[in-house]
Amino acid sequence: MNEFLYLQIAEKLQQQIEKQVLKTGDKLPSVRALSKEQGISLTTAYQAYGELETKGLIEARPKSGYYVRFSPSQYPRTVSRQKTTKPQQVSVASVATLVYQKMRQEGVTRLSLATPSVDLLPEAKLNKSMMEAIRRSASSCLEYEDLQGHLQLREHIAKNAFSWGGILTAEEIVTTQGCMEALVYCLKAVTEHGDSVAIESPVYFGISNVLHSLGLKAVEIPVDPETGVDITYLEKAMKTVAIKACLFVTNFSNPSGANMPAERKKQLVELLHKKKIPLIEDDIYGEMYFGKTRPVTCKSFDTGGWVLLCSSISKALAPGYRVGWCLPGRYLDKVLHLKLMSSVSSATPTQAAIAHFFETGRYDLHMRNLRKTLHTQCLRYTQAIASFFPSDTKISRPAGGFVLWVELNPAVDALELFHEALTYGISIAPGQLFSAHGKFRHHIRVSFGAPYTPLIEKSLKTLARLITQKINKSQSR
Amino acid sequence: MNEFLYLQIAEKLQQQIEKQVLKTGDKLPSVRALSKEQGISLTTAYQAYGELETKGLIEARPKSGYYVRFSPSQYPRTVSRQKTTKPQQVSVASVATLVYQKMRQEGVTRLSLATPSVDLLPEAKLNKSMMEAIRRSASSCLEYEDLQGHLQLREHIAKNAFSWGGILTAEEIVTTQGCMEALVYCLKAVTEHGDSVAIESPVYFGISNVLHSLGLKAVEIPVDPETGVDITYLEKAMKTVAIKACLFVTNFSNPSGANMPAERKKQLVELLHKKKIPLIEDDIYGEMYFGKTRPVTCKSFDTGGWVLLCSSISKALAPGYRVGWCLPGRYLDKVLHLKLMSSVSSATPTQAAIAHFFETGRYDLHMRNLRKTLHTQCLRYTQAIASFFPSDTKISRPAGGFVLWVELNPAVDALELFHEALTYGISIAPGQLFSAHGKFRHHIRVSFGAPYTPLIEKSLKTLARLITQKINKSQSR
Repeated sequence: MNEFLYLQIAEKLQQQIEKQVLKTGDKLPSVRALSKEQGISLTTAYQAYGELETKGLIEARPKSGYYVRFSPSQYPRTVSRQKTTKPQQVSVASVATLVYQKMRQEGVTRLSLATPSVDLLPEAKLNKSMMEAIRRSASSCLEYEDLQGHLQLREHIAKNAFSWGGILTAEEIVTTQGCMEALVYCLKAVTEHGDSVAIESPVYFGISNVLHSLGLKAVEIPVDPETGVDITYLEKAMKTVAIKACLFVTNFSNPSGANMPAERKKQLVELLHKKKIPLIEDDIYGEMYFGKTRPVTCKSFDTGGWVLLCSSISKALAPGYRVGWCLPGRYLDKVLHLKLMSSVSSATPTQAAIAHFFETGRYDLHMRNLRKTLHTQCLRYTQAIASFFPSDTKISRPAGGFVLWVELNPAVDALELFHEALTYGISIAPGQLFSAHGKFRHHIRVSFGAPYTPLIEKSLKTLARLITQKINKSQSR
Repeated sequence: MNEFLYLQIAEKLQQQIEKQVLKTGDKLPSVRALSKEQGISLTTAYQAYGELETKGLIEARPKSGYYVRFSPSQYPRTVSRQKTTKPQQVSVASVATLVYQKMRQEGVTRLSLATPSVDLLPEAKLNKSMMEAIRRSASSCLEYEDLQGHLQLREHIAKNAFSWGGILTAEEIVTTQGCMEALVYCLKAVTEHGDSVAIESPVYFGISNVLHSLGLKAVEIPVDPETGVDITYLEKAMKTVAIKACLFVTNFSNPSGANMPAERKKQLVELLHKKKIPLIEDDIYGEMYFGKTRPVTCKSFDTGGWVLLCSSISKALAPGYRVGWCLPGRYLDKVLHLKLMSSVSSATPTQAAIAHFFETGRYDLHMRNLRKTLHTQCLRYTQAIASFFPSDTKISRPAGGFVLWVELNPAVDALELFHEALTYGISIAPGQLFSAHGKFRHHIRVSFGAPYTPLIEKSLKTLARLITQKINKSQSR
């Protein structure tokens, strides 16, 4: 007897709903009918419907049975294209600082932070790992850590890399203060002041800000939500601008949710290898997949050491620990050197604690649960936005990660909406943050990292009301 | 009855020895005579001599009494002057990486690391603080910390600043990943790529490397071991080079040990204020004073917000925690912004643990012990080098910190010595690391952060032998 049978049934039904074979409002077979039809027990049939109900896809109507409540596929994905490849000094810094500060205010519903809620993290187990790691360390983790990083931690990172196709040793890995520091080192290793770097559009504001702060110019390459970075566009851009490096989030990009198919990743790596252009691959969301297997990375196709992969445990285990790493390929020595120059070494106790957590073997179990929860939350948020927001709203359909990319009616200025929402104690990330060219001014990024609660529902309803008001106001003018 | 009376007596005697009123080899009054002369008990007289013995300044000869063994003042301080103010792209990077990597090898006697040995740190208390801090935190320190830094930690830093003349609030402080990251943010806040920055000569290689990595040019200003940075020289340099900022270690500089008198600090601050040139003040050694009171900082004379003070707990409590901070004065917003760009926030658990440690009130007691121990170790190392090394060796006489700056016979190449010493499992910092102009090639920096043990003595004797061999070899040529 397969105890996960109900999940298989639920998945099949979900596919039917997504493909709109079962449409919103359709009545589903009764539990008894499903049981007979699939040759499963009544309990399993109940469980399967329960699973779909949790995900918000179906609803039970008293004395009537189960109905399709929502199909994510009804909501078209957002695609946005930019018109120019002219390199730009990037700065969306002041908006970012404001958003970031407001994100952290007490009593604010944070729909703006692309991290999991603490409730989803293995709090007690990590605390235990911290205590144990300190107890085990000969110097209680008080001494400077090895420049390259905590050895056992690097060994575990190497081991886990197998899931994305990486055949690694600890010697190829450098630990950092979160993924952000890894990106800084990699950018500094492969560019000079004034160089142009290809980034995605829309792009996570942290990335454009880092470029700006290093005196680098950004060339925005449009992202297709199905196929990721537009490689043809990139090739064309290379002919007009001397692109010195690329920095792409290849899995579940932020904010677009785009997930580049393996074949396209391979194609990208081959193109860049040929041109000897390094690719900094930000894989911070790669582990947060909703599908059956982890997506591979560009790094897995890298034969020449031109791909520098960056990641961290901030999204999966502990944002506050600031434990990240990079695999700098042929730039290993340069990155090590930069690390020595700017931070001497990374903090010892947090690295040791994460290494211990990996050692306990709890990582896989934790991730299975986290992925399932995030997938459910993704569907619940999508459904809520689809129901509450005006009907011309477009919502991305990510297959992993923490965020929805929402395109509103062009009459809505997202930055204005951001300020208004704040007065109601709601924090969103306005689209303006995600481009240096003022694009995406009627887009918002909504994080589904927090469990879907009545408070979240209320916040989304308030947002919907504010948006509708804005549209009405523009139409009455 | 004053329980510290013996320390007062010991100090007076030490002054006599330092002023060479009592010379090496002189017999001291008997315990009975000292007791009578000073109107103290026999026990107190014994304790006073015991204190001086611990410091290695006197020795008891069986059945004969106490004799002066050593006077630090016999060894002239090293003064080195540079000939040019032409700004230089700095890079002593490859040597630094090598030294740093070798420093950390197992079984190597590390005379090269300017940090206290773990034995001198409050290990158990810090562990307790870590546990307690995590227990208290609503999210077990898993969440991103506030951008500016842990509030209670900043409050304690503000409180402690009173000892160096700082009247501060937590709002003026930004926490960082060690002092090094603080320096990076401050440099980036006050300069543009290609600018010239005045630094000390000799200078800690970490500082010249950071400048290099930020594309800044270094103008080396000579340091006088008595009065610190040569202000007259700096003023002259300003007339020929557009100096955009200064970065000085004003208290117990590394490697020179120089400690700028308060009056000179005031003079420097006034000069720079007048010229609107920011001063980045690295005060990482300020708490490690051997005298009665903590030296003030330039920051304490800063009325215009032109001084950016940087420091950390790496030297006093826990190198591996990487908890540092800066007081960026008028550049606060800029530094906050840079922090957001490159690290999002600093690690939560380590900040929280240090805040808790401060809260327990154990910091003052710990520092009193640490200072006393370091002072004793300073004297023991100085004495050993003075005894074992060739007679033309010159040794700095720092009034705080962790390092001795040792000038050898000009026939000795310190980098060669470094490599030879490594084959004996001894790591020193060669003088070449401390200037971009190849100066100080016959200097070495010796750390006295580790307790003086027979192994240390053996290592210093080995060094002495290698040095003597080198001198003899050069003379026979």
